[in-house]
Amino acid sequence: MNVETASSPHPRRHLTGIAHLSLPEIHHLLNLAESEIAVSRSRDKKKSALKGRTQINLFFEASTRTQASFELAGKRLGADVMNMSVANSSVKKGETLIDTAMTLNAMQPDILVVRHHAAGAVALLAQKVDCSVVNAGDGAHEHPTQALLDALTIRRRKGQIAGLTVAICGDVLHSRVARSNILLLNALGANVRVVAPSTLLPAGIENMGVTVFHRMDEGLEGADVVMMLRLQRERMEGAFVPSVREYFRHFGLDAQKLGWAKAGALVMHPGPMNRGVEIASGIADGPQSVIEEQVEMGVAVRMAVMEWLAGDGGETA
Amino acid sequence: MNVETASSPHPRRHLTGIAHLSLPEIHHLLNLAESEIAVSRSRDKKKSALKGRTQINLFFEASTRTQASFELAGKRLGADVMNMSVANSSVKKGETLIDTAMTLNAMQPDILVVRHHAAGAVALLAQKVDCSVVNAGDGAHEHPTQALLDALTIRRRKGQIAGLTVAICGDVLHSRVARSNILLLNALGANVRVVAPSTLLPAGIENMGVTVFHRMDEGLEGADVVMMLRLQRERMEGAFVPSVREYFRHFGLDAQKLGWAKAGALVMHPGPMNRGVEIASGIADGPQSVIEEQVEMGVAVRMAVMEWLAGDGGETA
Amino acid sequence: MNVETASSPHPRRHLTGIAHLSLPEIHHLLNLAESEIAVSRSRDKKKSALKGRTQINLFFEASTRTQASFELAGKRLGADVMNMSVANSSVKKGETLIDTAMTLNAMQPDILVVRHHAAGAVALLAQKVDCSVVNAGDGAHEHPTQALLDALTIRRRKGQIAGLTVAICGDVLHSRVARSNILLLNALGANVRVVAPSTLLPAGIENMGVTVFHRMDEGLEGADVVMMLRLQRERMEGAFVPSVREYFRHFGLDAQKLGWAKAGALVMHPGPMNRGVEIASGIADGPQSVIEEQVEMGVAVRMAVMEWLAGDGGETA
Repeated sequence: MNVETASSPHPRRHLTGIAHLSLPEIHHLLNLAESEIAVSRSRDKKKSALKGRTQINLFFEASTRTQASFELAGKRLGADVMNMSVANSSVKKGETLIDTAMTLNAMQPDILVVRHHAAGAVALLAQKVDCSVVNAGDGAHEHPTQALLDALTIRRRKGQIAGLTVAICGDVLHSRVARSNILLLNALGANVRVVAPSTLLPAGIENMGVTVFHRMDEGLEGADVVMMLRLQRERMEGAFVPSVREYFRHFGLDAQKLGWAKAGALVMHPGPMNRGVEIASGIADGPQSVIEEQVEMGVAVRMAVMEWLAGDGGETA
Repeated sequence: MNVETASSPHPRRHLTGIAHLSLPEIHHLLNLAESEIAVSRSRDKKKSALKGRTQINLFFEASTRTQASFELAGKRLGADVMNMSVANSSVKKGETLIDTAMTLNAMQPDILVVRHHAAGAVALLAQKVDCSVVNAGDGAHEHPTQALLDALTIRRRKGQIAGLTVAICGDVLHSRVARSNILLLNALGANVRVVAPSTLLPAGIENMGVTVFHRMDEGLEGADVVMMLRLQRERMEGAFVPSVREYFRHFGLDAQKLGWAKAGALVMHPGPMNRGVEIASGIADGPQSVIEEQVEMGVAVRMAVMEWLAGDGGETA
Repeated sequence: MNVETASSPHPRRHLTGIAHLSLPEIHHLLNLAESEIAVSRSRDKKKSALKGRTQINLFFEASTRTQASFELAGKRLGADVMNMSVANSSVKKGETLIDTAMTLNAMQPDILVVRHHAAGAVALLAQKVDCSVVNAGDGAHEHPTQALLDALTIRRRKGQIAGLTVAICGDVLHSRVARSNILLLNALGANVRVVAPSTLLPAGIENMGVTVFHRMDEGLEGADVVMMLRLQRERMEGAFVPSVREYFRHFGLDAQKLGWAKAGALVMHPGPMNRGVEIASGIADGPQSVIEEQVEMGVAVRMAVMEWLAGDGGETA
């Protein structure tokens, strides 16, 4: 947790990454999210926790599902939500990231949800503005609400996370999802593995508290959770762009490979899926898949995060 | 009406096409729409019928007016409305239609309003999701709320629809508006004509309960309603794209051609109009035109449809 | 003020330009805006002044900040706000400006906020529709809410506007901001100067009640307010496009040039800024800059304008 005290009357909390959350804060957020699930399942999906507050979704990269999830979360909390996508924005006229943020800040939002293609951009913003900032993904750095929703999904299915073996498979190199999940799952006591060809692993990954595997048969053996990553071909520059067919043969999750994991292992994917690339269709839609449940938990987690950020600070975290 | 009972706790109603509505349902919707008109005409345009509900407008084709009409209808019913247009969507990243829909479905909307360029796509979606689905236009198949608003406009102006002669003129081939109107007007007892060159008529049109004309003088004679269609040049592939000038001369509605219809015949157009192509400006803005009234009725009809879909099922339809 | 009585049941007020406001109306709007400031600074930023009303933002030119400011203003007043940006609009299908406006009008909005690239387009619309129209910038003509927010910012900082010397500097030729400010500041009794190369001044500018300077040292001497304009290179056609470097040397506001103005002179810019072109970064972020305060006042002024337009007409203006 970052607490910003500089120029604002009250200290503002931000969620820039899992790295800044304490363990009690993580448990508080997961428990709060648990209680938000019922809101979206109700006929009247509206709380008044953020009534009269302003939430701005500032997306420098397009993302249907993440923006939608934050938008619905804010609306269900009673906030006024405004979307700013950069496609139609003055940023195109040469304005800087900081000027854009300071302009929005002067309109007095309470919460700024930011996605940006550069690692660290969101934390930089958080230092400048008076409102709470939520990182909705910054480059290959962090995507904390994704990790929280994954943890909530696992916890609800498996009862607890401590002691579970979670295999994170695929394009770890370009994945903020992997990075945030590694931090969070380690904090919660899981045994975290990464399974990828060495060309799709960042340097120094073994120092993040993970066991590294280069083959799916070895990496999945005994896994309670198989977490597939999206192959981010759009972030690959020249050098190594794997053939889809080769990739699927070695690292795509199909029935045979899933058979190497524990019986009843959960199958997860952050979406959007490349069917037939990272995952076979039959597995994505099969009985072990919790992919849609992840989406549902996403709204609940984002509600929890924003309710917590906008709170009075009086909660026992 | 489709009732989906498979996996959802309550049966969900959808509006995928006029073809699936019973006559009592049609009358119920038109009567309900009649009562919605006053809402938009009031100073306080807000009902609470959908308070706390979530409506998602999922548009795979851009459409200013239809999306706006559904958005205002939902907001005036008190729903939280979220727009998803495909331009900025993950669909571009290769995700399938069904994955997009299932992802949104997992966010627990109550109503999904869908426009798609492929006939049948909306009905396919309706089979997959747990929420109510409204077809806002699927390819050349159906556009049921357009037909309902047209019927409401005619009924208010002419007292009733049974026994009226309605001439639907122009590009019937590419028109879901024509198709839905033919189904609805026939169900309500009108005499339906189509007036178009044979190149702009679908095969088998004469089996839909219409009389076919190829000349405006013959087709408009004695008509109570002249319903012009938009020339969908963007949907024409190579072969036959009529010259605008030739088209207007033969099929564009001008004062002379309107003179062939009954005195006081209504002039309708679903918009957006190509002035000087399907219709002369003087006619579009003239005393017989009810084109703006159609737009007003559009909001009322969409309010009625969504209020009905989200209802408890206890209504006498 | 324009009062439209033609076809609507109640006379509708519009804000198409500063030129149509009376002095009492200007003072009324500034005072009302002053009272709106507290709303956005509160935890609960929501009034009910426009509860149940519909506001449509119809932007034919993209503008992040102006559209956002109007959107938040409307939402904080309790209105339902719908954004229509032309990029995804049926206007692309060849529909006319007036048809688009009349279609939206038939959906019964209470307020239509319009930005258009053509001078006079907004006033034309205002004559056609039944709702109140606000000009959010029309070509090089007017941008009245920008002038009002600038006046509010100056009044709050300097106590009053009458008698102040305001230097408007830079690309006056392409600037609706300059034009609206000249009208408003003159009405409020300021001494208004324009400082620009003759190639960036419109013909006849000296007849608008301003003193013209071609050098910053002369134009800024004794100024209480230095109002920089955005260099609108996107509106320049061929002939004269100044080099950025030359422009900054002669007309960009840096510490030396600001030194020529009065001590404590306010530095203003309507944004988005081209740092290093119109203004040095150190000045934009310096102690004399009120650029972010302008943004905050923007929301307050737009709330005041829309609350006033939607009022019963019973206010003492």
